[in-house]
Formats: sequence, C-alpha cells, structure tokens
Amino acid sequence: MIRRPFFEFWYEFASPYSYLTAMRIEQAAAEAGVELVWRPFLLGPIFKAQGWGTSPFNLYPAKGRYMWRDMEREAARFGLPLYRPSLFPQNTLLAARLALLGLDKGWTPVFTQAVYAAEFGEGRDISDPQVLSGILSGLGLDPETTVHEAQSDATKGRLRRLNDEALSRGVIGAPSFFAEDGEMFWGNDRLDQALEWAATQARRSEVPL
Amino acid sequence: MIRRPFFEFWYEFASPYSYLTAMRIEQAAAEAGVELVWRPFLLGPIFKAQGWGTSPFNLYPAKGRYMWRDMEREAARFGLPLYRPSLFPQNTLLAARLALLGLDKGWTPVFTQAVYAAEFGEGRDISDPQVLSGILSGLGLDPETTVHEAQSDATKGRLRRLNDEALSRGVIGAPSFFAEDGEMFWGNDRLDQALEWAATQARRSEVPL
Repeated sequence: MIRRPFFEFWYEFASPYSYLTAMRIEQAAAEAGVELVWRPFLLGPIFKAQGWGTSPFNLYPAKGRYMWRDMEREAARFGLPLYRPSLFPQNTLLAARLALLGLDKGWTPVFTQAVYAAEFGEGRDISDPQVLSGILSGLGLDPETTVHEAQSDATKGRLRRLNDEALSRGVIGAPSFFAEDGEMFWGNDRLDQALEWAATQARRSEVPL
Repeated sequence: MIRRPFFEFWYEFASPYSYLTAMRIEQAAAEAGVELVWRPFLLGPIFKAQGWGTSPFNLYPAKGRYMWRDMEREAARFGLPLYRPSLFPQNTLLAARLALLGLDKGWTPVFTQAVYAAEFGEGRDISDPQVLSGILSGLGLDPETTVHEAQSDATKGRLRRLNDEALSRGVIGAPSFFAEDGEMFWGNDRLDQALEWAATQARRSEVPL
C-alpha cells in the first residue's frame, strides 16, 4: 500500500476564513488522496509578533468591513450559513486546547466543525465554556473530564509548542496549509492549489528508480 | 443591441497581484461579456489612511516573504514570467498619470500591460522616465509630448480625484473590481467571482417586464 502524503491544516477558531475551509477540507483532502493533519493553533501570538494587539480586521475597519461582505459571498458560494458574531474575535483558548486534546482520540474533526458551525453558522459565543460543553456532550464526550484534561499542563504546553512552531515556520494567518515538503500556502483561497501541490509531490516520489 | 455592463478594474503599478490580473483581464472580461473600465490609481494614499508609510509587504517581512513565494507559484500557474524587482514598491506616479492619459485615446490597456511586463516580467525600474519613454515609443507614441501631457495639472488633478474616489468607495488594496451595482471585490483571486457577479447582474436586468 502506498502511504498517502501528510497535509497539514493550521486553523484558528476565531478565523472566519478557517471556517470556510474546515467545513469542506475533509472531502477535498480525500479526493486529493492526502492524509489530513489537523493543527489547531492561536493567531494571537502571531499577530503580537507583527505588533498587532488584535485582529487586523479590527485594527483596520475598512478591511474588516470588506472581509465580512466577502465572507457573506464566499459562504453563500460554498453553501454554508453565515452569522456574524457580535463579538469578534472570540477568545478561542479553551476551544483550541480541546481540539488539540481530541487529536489522540480522533474526535478533533467533528469537534472542530461543530465549534465553527456554532460560532459562524449560529452566532454563538464559543468562548463560553457552557457552549463548548454542550458541543462535547453532543459528541458523546463527558464535558467535565474533557475540559479538565484540556486545561492540563500537558495540553497547555502542547498548544504553546504548536504556536511556537507556527511562528518559526512563517505562518502569518489562518487557515494555512503545509505540504509534506514544507511548502506553505495561506488562505481558504489556496486550498485547491495546496492540495494539488501535495498530491503532485506525492506522485513524483512514486516514480520508480 | 444590449449594452454590456461596466466592470471597473482598479490597479496600482507597484502591486504584484495587479500584474497577474492585468495580463489576463481583457480575455476574461470579453468572455464574461462585460465592458472593461481601466482605473489606474495609487495605493500610497490608501495605505496612508491606514497609518502605513509603505507597503504592508515591507512593514511585515513575514508577509512579504510569503507574498513573493505565492507570486512565484501564481505567476507559474498563469504562465507569466516573474522577476522580483530589487526595489519594492516602485514609485508609480508617472506611470499612473500616463495610464490615465491614455484612457481617452485608447492605449491604456497595452501601455498598462507593457509597464507590468517590464516591471515584474523583466525586473526593470518603471519609476525611471527613460523606461516609460521606451514603452511609449514602442507603442508609436511620442514620449516627450506624452510625458508632458501626463504631467499637466489636468492629469494630475484627475489622478487625485480617482484616488479620493477609491478611498471613499472603501478600496483597501489592489487589484479591486467594481460591478455596475457598486459591489466591490478585492484581489486577483476574486476576478472570476467579480466577473460572474457583474454578468449575473446584467442578465437579471435583461428580464422582460
């Protein structure tokens, strides 16, 4: 059996364009024949490294206005609901730690999609532990022990290391994608090209000597 | 005969992604059945309004590094040569005034494409009046009188008004596109959606009463 190449999907729960990617990336990755690796991280430290105290969509209101209009059109194009949250960006620390915790147990993809659907599809506040607990319950997980585990030093440290890795690999926003050869792509608009890159690299490595 | 809807293409000569658009927009607009309107303008005043003294690709080096890598991939995808200019962004004031002057006489499209090809396809310095004069000569225009006319108060004022219009209409970068109903799209990545929007709006207005 030929091993499928890894394809990393780096996402931040507060990022609107990451929502558009998260809801469709599983099918797209399966079609491209790559092994999807979920990488929940935080944009806060990335923005801080650029000298920004909050999202550039807030720092530059004209940019923010355009982004929300563009999101309306793009969500419609992908057949996704869009509800602009009253608070933006939301605090996504607990959600990211939970998504990270789910990696070993396999529930990160469904959890991630449920969080995005709540936030951008229904306008709910995902910084609220009650909202996250409700999502965990819906997946058949015990909210109390799961949240407790997500707040452990081990999970906290793991998220910090992932954020350090994002910075050192040159991540500047979300979503970002890495092919196995380290090639980076940024933005929901680059999903197709990134998958094609990853699939092409994999085909090249199959060529017999 | 049915009037084709207007489709505005706002571009800045220093903008790499505007180069990718400029070289292919004529064919794309013709296929979409829209009337292409060329709008050369300057990003400087737009960036200044956001509090930036230069291009964000220079202010944020990680973003700049990513952009040039992305440009390499995107230029290859569109079959265009790419030469990263040693100076970025270039001073595009004279080039923009010239492009504006050509609107009435019809040579703006070929001039625009020749300037972009020189700058990003060959790495030449388009802030150099000699380079621009060479391009004008190549188009069969008299460089001396054309440059003189481009530096007239009338052309200068026209460019200032166009820049004011860009700001007031919420332009945040280049390339930007406007459909006839005022809908704005930003980025080379949005050319197809913008054209589809414009064409769809036009079809709707054709519906008999």
